[in-house]
Amino acid sequence: MAEDHVAESPGRQPDTPLPAWVDLYDTTLRDGTQREGITPTVDDKLRIARLIDGLGVPFIEGGWPGANPKDTEFFARAAKGELPLERAELVAFGMTRRPDRDASGDPSLGTLLEAATPVVCLVGKAWSLHVTEAVGTTKDENLAMIADSVRLLRSEGRRVLFDAEHFFDGHRNDPDYALAVLEAAAEAGAECLVLCDTNGGMLPEEVERVTGGVVGRFGGRGGTQIGVHVHNDTECAVANSLAGLRAGATHVQGTVNGIGERCGNANLCSLIPNLKLKYGIDVVGDTELGQLTTVANEVAETMNLIPDPHAPYVGHAAFAHKAGLHTSALQKNPMTYQHIDPAKVGGELRLLMSELAGRSTIVMKGEQLGIDLGGDGDLANRILGRVKDLEHAGYSFEAADASFELLVADEAGTAEDVFRLEGFRAIVERREDGSPVAEGTVRVWVRDETAEGGWSRRIGVGEGNGPVDALDQAFRHAVNGQFPDLDRIHLADYKVRIVDPQAGTGATTRVLVSSSDGEREWQTVGVSENVIDASWKAMADAYRYGLAGIDGPG
Amino acid sequence: MAEDHVAESPGRQPDTPLPAWVDLYDTTLRDGTQREGITPTVDDKLRIARLIDGLGVPFIEGGWPGANPKDTEFFARAAKGELPLERAELVAFGMTRRPDRDASGDPSLGTLLEAATPVVCLVGKAWSLHVTEAVGTTKDENLAMIADSVRLLRSEGRRVLFDAEHFFDGHRNDPDYALAVLEAAAEAGAECLVLCDTNGGMLPEEVERVTGGVVGRFGGRGGTQIGVHVHNDTECAVANSLAGLRAGATHVQGTVNGIGERCGNANLCSLIPNLKLKYGIDVVGDTELGQLTTVANEVAETMNLIPDPHAPYVGHAAFAHKAGLHTSALQKNPMTYQHIDPAKVGGELRLLMSELAGRSTIVMKGEQLGIDLGGDGDLANRILGRVKDLEHAGYSFEAADASFELLVADEAGTAEDVFRLEGFRAIVERREDGSPVAEGTVRVWVRDETAEGGWSRRIGVGEGNGPVDALDQAFRHAVNGQFPDLDRIHLADYKVRIVDPQAGTGATTRVLVSSSDGEREWQTVGVSENVIDASWKAMADAYRYGLAGIDGPG
Repeated sequence: MAEDHVAESPGRQPDTPLPAWVDLYDTTLRDGTQREGITPTVDDKLRIARLIDGLGVPFIEGGWPGANPKDTEFFARAAKGELPLERAELVAFGMTRRPDRDASGDPSLGTLLEAATPVVCLVGKAWSLHVTEAVGTTKDENLAMIADSVRLLRSEGRRVLFDAEHFFDGHRNDPDYALAVLEAAAEAGAECLVLCDTNGGMLPEEVERVTGGVVGRFGGRGGTQIGVHVHNDTECAVANSLAGLRAGATHVQGTVNGIGERCGNANLCSLIPNLKLKYGIDVVGDTELGQLTTVANEVAETMNLIPDPHAPYVGHAAFAHKAGLHTSALQKNPMTYQHIDPAKVGGELRLLMSELAGRSTIVMKGEQLGIDLGGDGDLANRILGRVKDLEHAGYSFEAADASFELLVADEAGTAEDVFRLEGFRAIVERREDGSPVAEGTVRVWVRDETAEGGWSRRIGVGEGNGPVDALDQAFRHAVNGQFPDLDRIHLADYKVRIVDPQAGTGATTRVLVSSSDGEREWQTVGVSENVIDASWKAMADAYRYGLAGIDGPG
Repeated sequence: MAEDHVAESPGRQPDTPLPAWVDLYDTTLRDGTQREGITPTVDDKLRIARLIDGLGVPFIEGGWPGANPKDTEFFARAAKGELPLERAELVAFGMTRRPDRDASGDPSLGTLLEAATPVVCLVGKAWSLHVTEAVGTTKDENLAMIADSVRLLRSEGRRVLFDAEHFFDGHRNDPDYALAVLEAAAEAGAECLVLCDTNGGMLPEEVERVTGGVVGRFGGRGGTQIGVHVHNDTECAVANSLAGLRAGATHVQGTVNGIGERCGNANLCSLIPNLKLKYGIDVVGDTELGQLTTVANEVAETMNLIPDPHAPYVGHAAFAHKAGLHTSALQKNPMTYQHIDPAKVGGELRLLMSELAGRSTIVMKGEQLGIDLGGDGDLANRILGRVKDLEHAGYSFEAADASFELLVADEAGTAEDVFRLEGFRAIVERREDGSPVAEGTVRVWVRDETAEGGWSRRIGVGEGNGPVDALDQAFRHAVNGQFPDLDRIHLADYKVRIVDPQAGTGATTRVLVSSSDGEREWQTVGVSENVIDASWKAMADAYRYGLAGIDGPG
C-alpha cells in the first residue's frame, strides 16, 4: 500500500502545509528583461504576455511605462486592444514620486497612470541606507513619498501592489524603518506588500523568519496580503520564495525561465510545478501545467535565448536518463528514477536507446497540428527518422511548426509544390565610401499550366538592405505574376542562432522565420553552415507553406 | 554603526548557526560526468582533480573504477603518482556486492580495492522499492550486501563513506527500512552516512526534518558523521544541502558548476561561498575562495562547456549592473547593489554600457579598463554621445568591451590603426545540386614602413563555409606576412542577433564576436542592416584590438 502511494504521488511534500492559495505574479517583461543582452521588441513582449496569460497566471507585469519608449508603446498598444488577456490582470510598474514634490504633478506617476492598467506595482525604498545614500533624502520624506504615491494611485481607482525594494537587507540593517515603510504603504491603501531581496543575497531561513514577522504584523489586521520577490544570487531563489510562502506570504513574483539581472529572478517554471505537484496548491490548472515546457521554450525563443537543457521540469534533459541500470529500473517502474510524471509539465521521459518515446512524440505533435499519424506506424517512423537526422544537423522544430508540417506532407506524399529552386546567388559588396550593397539572383521553376511539362523556368534579380532581403526581392521578381497571393505574404520576424558557437565563423547557423499573410502567422526553419543558405531554406519553407495554404490544402 | 556593519559584511547570515565545520566532497569527476554530452578524457580528469585540489576541498571522488576503462585508467595513473594531491583525499566510488554472493570474491569490490585509494565511497540501496523491484532481491539480503561490503573494505584498511541511494524517497515510503540500511552500514564500520536525494525531488523542509532525525539517531552514539548528496530537479539543490547542514549534517557532496545528470547536482560554486561568506564556516581559505571563479571557468572549459554567465558568484554576469540608477548608487556605496564584495570569489563589478548609462558610468567603465576619463569631462561627454548614437543604431556595448575600448581610443586620439579597409565583396551561390559556395574578396591598406606614405594596398581572396568565414580567410590572405601575430588570433564565438526582428529580412543585425589569442579573450560588436557587413565590422574590431594589443598599446 505504501508503495502504491509512492507510485501514484511520488513528489507530494508531506511537511508543513503552505497557504491554501498563492497568487503568481509574472515579471518576465520587466525584471526579466534586465538580463544582460535581452532586448525584446514590443511585438515580442505582446507575444510573451499572451503566452504567459495562457498559463493562467493572475498578474503579468508588462514593463515600466516611461522608463523607455518600448515599454510606453507596449502599454499604449495594450490599451488599444492589442493585448486581450483572458485571465491575467496587466500590471504597470513605476516608482514613488520624487523627493520634495507633489505626487499629483510627478511626471513618472503621471506616465504610470497613462498606462491605464487596472493594477499598478509601485516600488519604494525600504532600506534606510538607500534612502540617505542613494536617493539622498530623509527617512521621513521617503515615507511620505511612498504614502503620497500610493494614495494618488488609489484615488485614480488603481489597485496598488507595493514592492519594498531591498526589504530584507533593510530589515537586517534597520528593521524599524523597513517595517515603517510597509506601514506607510499599507495605510495609504496598498493591497499587497511585496518583500524584495533586490540584491539576491538572502538564504531561506532569514526569508522565512523575516516574512513570518511581517505576516504576523500586517497579515492579521484587515489582511494586507504579503508577497515575496527574490533574486538568485545565492542559487536559492526558488527555495527563498517557498520559505516566504511557508511563512504565510500568499503572493510570489518571478519570471519565466528565471531570467533577470545578474543571476536571475525566482524561476516560475520551477516554482509552479513545485507548488502544484509537491504542495498540492493549484496555482495553475492541470492543462496549463501541461503546457509549461512549451511556454518556457517559446518565451526563450522569442527572446532569442537558447533554452537551458538542464532546467528543472522544463529542460530537455530534465527527464533524460542514460541507458543502463536506470533504464531497466524505469521500465519496471517509472517512479524509480523520476520525481514526477514528466507528462504533467509537458515533458517526456527520454531514454537514449528508446525509439518509442520519440515516435509517441511525433504522433502527439501530429495531433497538435491536426494530423493523424497514430494509424500509420511506418509513416510516423519515417518522420521520426527524418526529424532525428535533421535535429542532429542542427534543426529544431520546437518553434517551426510550418516546417514540420511541410516535412510531414513530404513524407506522406501529400505535398503539392508550387515552385522548385534551381539556384541562387547573393553578392554583398562594401565600397570605400562604407555603404554596403546587396544583390540577389534567383533561378526557380514555377508550376505553370501553360508550359510544357507543367513547369516554367524563371530568373529574377533584386537589391536589398542585405543579402537575405535581396534574395527575397529576387524571388518575388522571378515568380512575378504567377502567385498573386505572394504580395500578401511578408516576413514578420527573423532570428539567427549559432548552433555551435565555439566553431567561430565556421559554425552552423539556424535561422527561424515568422511569416504572415495578414491573417495567419507561421514559423519556418533553415540550417546551414552558411547564414545565407540557412536563411534561404527558412524563407523557401515560408513561401511554400504560405502559398500552399492560400491556394489550397498543403 | 549599523551601516558600517552592513558595508563591511553585508552578506553574513544572522540566523541559526550551522555546524562549526563542514567537510566538502567533490563528485564532479563521477556524478558530474553523468551530464549528457560530457566526455572528459583521463588527462582532463587529472587536470580537473588538480584544480579542485587547489581549492582545498578535503575529498575528491575520482570516478567508479571498473565501470568504464577511463575511470580504471584514471585511478591506475593516480596510483602511479600522476596525481599528487596536496590537500584532498582521493576517493574511489563503488557498489555493494552482488546478491547471494560472498563479498570477498565480488569482482566489483575487487576493482574498487585495486584502485588503492585511502577512502572509498560505497553506494547501497536505501529504498525498499528499489531493492525488490530494481535489484530483485530481499530487503534482508540488501542489508547483508551493505554490511558485508563495508566490512570487507574496512578489513582492507579503507576508510568507508556510505552513500544511501534514494534515502529520502525511501524514508518517505518505508522509513524503518531506510534507517535499517544506515544502521547496517554504520555497524559495519562506515565513518559517514550520506543521505542521497537521487531523484532530486525533495524540498528543504523535508530534507531538514529527515536529516535531523538521522543526526539525532546516529550522530549521538560514537558520532557517525552524516552527509547529504542532492540533485537539482526542484531547483533547490543548494538550499537542500544547506537544510541538511542546518539539521546537523557535517559532510556535503556536490560538483563544480553544479553539473550532473538531468538538472545537475548541488553546486559547490554556490555552496562554498554561501557557507564561507554567509555562515562564516571556513570550508576553504580566503585565498582559495578568491580562485573560485577561475577554477569554475577552467573546469568548464576543460569539459568543453560554455561557462554559464548567469551562475551565482562565478558567472560573468553575477556582478553586472545595467540600470543607470544602480550605477550612481554603486558609486556612492558598492554595497547598495551587491550582496558580497565580488573580489572575494575572484569576480568583479561590471557596469554594462547601455541606453541608461550616464557620464558617471562612462568614467567608472574607463577606470575598470585602466583609462582615466574623470579628468576630461569633454572627452567623457563625447564618448557618451557616441555610445548613445551607436546604441540607438542598434549597437550594444554590454558584451563588447574591446569595441568600447577602441571607441574610447578613437575619441581620445590614442588609437593606432594598423590597417584600413578599402572594401570587400562576398558572394554566396547555391547551385542546382544544393551545395552552397562562398567566396570573399578583401581590399585593405596595411601599415607598412617600407611603402610610400607608410601604407601599402593589399587584396586577398578566400573561400569558406559561409560568407563570413570566406571574408576572414580573404583578410588573412590579404595581410599575409604583415602581421605574424594574426595566426594566433582566432574567433572563439560568434553570435548574431536581429535587433528589430519585425522588420523581417530588412531588419538590423547585430553581430557579437569573441576572439582569443590563446591567452586573452576579447569581445567586439558590429551592426548593420546587412548581416555580412555587421559581421565584418565586428571582425575588423577584433583584428584591430588583437593586433594592437599584441604589437603594443592600442
